[in-house]
Amino acid sequence: MRAEIIGVGTELLLGQIANTNAQWISSRLATLGHSVYHHTVVGDNLKRVTDSFALAETRADLVIVTGGLGPTEDDLTLDAAQLVFDEELVEHEDSMEKIKGYYQRNQKFMSENNRKQARVFESASVFPNLEGMAPGQLVKHDDTLWVFLPGVPREMKYIMDEYVIPYLQNNYHIESQIVSEMMRFIGIGESDLETKLQSFITSQTNPTIAPLASEGEVGLRLTATGESTEKAKEKILTLKTEILAQVGKYYYGSDAITIEEKVRDLLKEKGFKIGSAESFTGGRFLERLIALPGASSVCQGGYTVYTVDMKERVLQIPKFLIKKCGTISHECAEMMALNAQANLNVDVAVSFTGVAGPDASEGHEPGTVFIGLQIGERKPEVHKFHFDGGREQVRVRAVKKAYEMIFHRLKK
Amino acid sequence: MRAEIIGVGTELLLGQIANTNAQWISSRLATLGHSVYHHTVVGDNLKRVTDSFALAETRADLVIVTGGLGPTEDDLTLDAAQLVFDEELVEHEDSMEKIKGYYQRNQKFMSENNRKQARVFESASVFPNLEGMAPGQLVKHDDTLWVFLPGVPREMKYIMDEYVIPYLQNNYHIESQIVSEMMRFIGIGESDLETKLQSFITSQTNPTIAPLASEGEVGLRLTATGESTEKAKEKILTLKTEILAQVGKYYYGSDAITIEEKVRDLLKEKGFKIGSAESFTGGRFLERLIALPGASSVCQGGYTVYTVDMKERVLQIPKFLIKKCGTISHECAEMMALNAQANLNVDVAVSFTGVAGPDASEGHEPGTVFIGLQIGERKPEVHKFHFDGGREQVRVRAVKKAYEMIFHRLKK
Repeated sequence: MRAEIIGVGTELLLGQIANTNAQWISSRLATLGHSVYHHTVVGDNLKRVTDSFALAETRADLVIVTGGLGPTEDDLTLDAAQLVFDEELVEHEDSMEKIKGYYQRNQKFMSENNRKQARVFESASVFPNLEGMAPGQLVKHDDTLWVFLPGVPREMKYIMDEYVIPYLQNNYHIESQIVSEMMRFIGIGESDLETKLQSFITSQTNPTIAPLASEGEVGLRLTATGESTEKAKEKILTLKTEILAQVGKYYYGSDAITIEEKVRDLLKEKGFKIGSAESFTGGRFLERLIALPGASSVCQGGYTVYTVDMKERVLQIPKFLIKKCGTISHECAEMMALNAQANLNVDVAVSFTGVAGPDASEGHEPGTVFIGLQIGERKPEVHKFHFDGGREQVRVRAVKKAYEMIFHRLKK
Repeated sequence: MRAEIIGVGTELLLGQIANTNAQWISSRLATLGHSVYHHTVVGDNLKRVTDSFALAETRADLVIVTGGLGPTEDDLTLDAAQLVFDEELVEHEDSMEKIKGYYQRNQKFMSENNRKQARVFESASVFPNLEGMAPGQLVKHDDTLWVFLPGVPREMKYIMDEYVIPYLQNNYHIESQIVSEMMRFIGIGESDLETKLQSFITSQTNPTIAPLASEGEVGLRLTATGESTEKAKEKILTLKTEILAQVGKYYYGSDAITIEEKVRDLLKEKGFKIGSAESFTGGRFLERLIALPGASSVCQGGYTVYTVDMKERVLQIPKFLIKKCGTISHECAEMMALNAQANLNVDVAVSFTGVAGPDASEGHEPGTVFIGLQIGERKPEVHKFHFDGGREQVRVRAVKKAYEMIFHRLKK
């Protein structure tokens, strides 16, 4: 079904909260195979809510409305729907009992406006709200299915999961099943990946391929439909195999995995311990690894050697080397990795030295970065980079790049 | 002006991300006094994007569009706008140079589809995107002002703050002025703060007071309106002074400042250098400080001593102490802070040892944390905490707590 999700509430338009309800409902509908074509947010204004409802009815088979079911004058979702449906609202007995019961139990006075919350359409299927006051309800009008839900996320999710999703599953069986996989790549840019896979992207309709760039990585979402989940999975697998034949060397995993987790897993697999010597990254590389469960089996520890004094005194980088080459140099990054490996007693040592900005340092522009990597007895390697962006981006990108380097070395 | 915010991108309709751009833009427009009447989200479909644009033009004076400016075939925001405006898109020279420059600097191949990102309308005011590729642009069509922005939040926010907001301020003067200040508190809970300020919160209408809790902190947003900015500011100042008389000792600053920045400023003020010895926090404490510009004048460096071996060998915690008390102990945290202060040659040393989880360690439940603090020649202090939440929350909360401790010690 073509679905639209309408959020009613001025607090959304003032930016006091984000419309996370629409996100949550969308992801639920996506797994059921329904296509959400629009999200709309409108304030607590009868004319504008009514207009939005009238528009939704022209373009959607399923409209899910969140918010505007409360007791105050601002809550006018059902009043607007009444104008569109031309159907009576009645008081729902069970819901009214529940509301009264709440006030009795809490020995509070129930003001008359609370009756509003028990209103339902005569023809509605009513969904009890165990998490709050106003019930959810489902109404058919012309060819459109309307669902009204409270705006409080906890209440909305409860009614969706308990009633709405089962209702949709039972009454709107989707013939074709949808399966989707997010393939994750590192070390290749979005447009480069797209160019390499151009023939697939333009020719494929099932599965579809959608590239998605994020910080230092690219994802490729494959989405297939089939008469059964197995059939859809087979289609994904066939395409995935073809894609891996082209760009497999940049692929590190699918769906929820992160590059940090992949590196942790590779280290574990090889029985390697890792440590770091970090300057401008401030320890971020190791911190991102220790953030993961299971870090203790692969992480030893590290040095954050931010100042020249720390590099010389704590990490024993020779004074003459710093004098000759500076701390932002190939030589310093190399010696940092070597000394970290030895002092920390680890198999893999990574080092960072560079300029995060905003100011230049030792004559190097912000974004200039050297990353050193020392694995076992191999020759140490050092790479120089220039990263764009502000201080935070340069640091984030440098750390991501190091994970990329380690991934490519260890997977061999 | 009546404003509408349109988010373009199928990822929003699939529920992969929430439309936080609309929230952020809405809150900015609210402080400028503009009324946002609609948020719309539409997928990467030329017909539906075009329809949404045509509809927005009938009901808004200002339309801000985010997303769909990238290099891929899915990115069709400008193509849809072209259909509505009936105006030519041209290649923007400066933007094109910038994109080429990026590929040259990074020695990468620029595929032809990247040219798409430099397209602007002939009549547009172009806003350079220092954080990414595609520029922002502003176009007037009939009586509607159109702004097109990248969907990446960092890029969108940069262009909004640098160009769009100043443009609106200069060209669309609002009669009554709104001023708002976010007061930030640490070391007091939301409900405790609210109870202490109950009389203000219930009696105030201008300024209004809205409490807002976030991780380990509480904010209080004061919002005042007045005939001039000065008048509104005066009202804020009067109320602020009264609030500070009640709960001033928890207040660390207003608006964009963070507790990390406050601690950096206090360290700078006193001419102190800081360093850390961190176990389960993985270096996060120091990393959050080095993330800030100006860190180099106060940060020396630190140890991430994740394993027992690191604690003993690199930080010289005596074996007998670890044998007797364990690494997760008052004694170990104290010795870590003392040795860090001496070895790193710093005025302030902070230490962390504890259990982030998911598993217990040395017989301590996840969430058990010791934080040590050694300032100058003072007696070292160690506090024990129990933090709720998963591995990540425990680590984040422990680090926040250390900033809180240092803030309260240094501000005296």
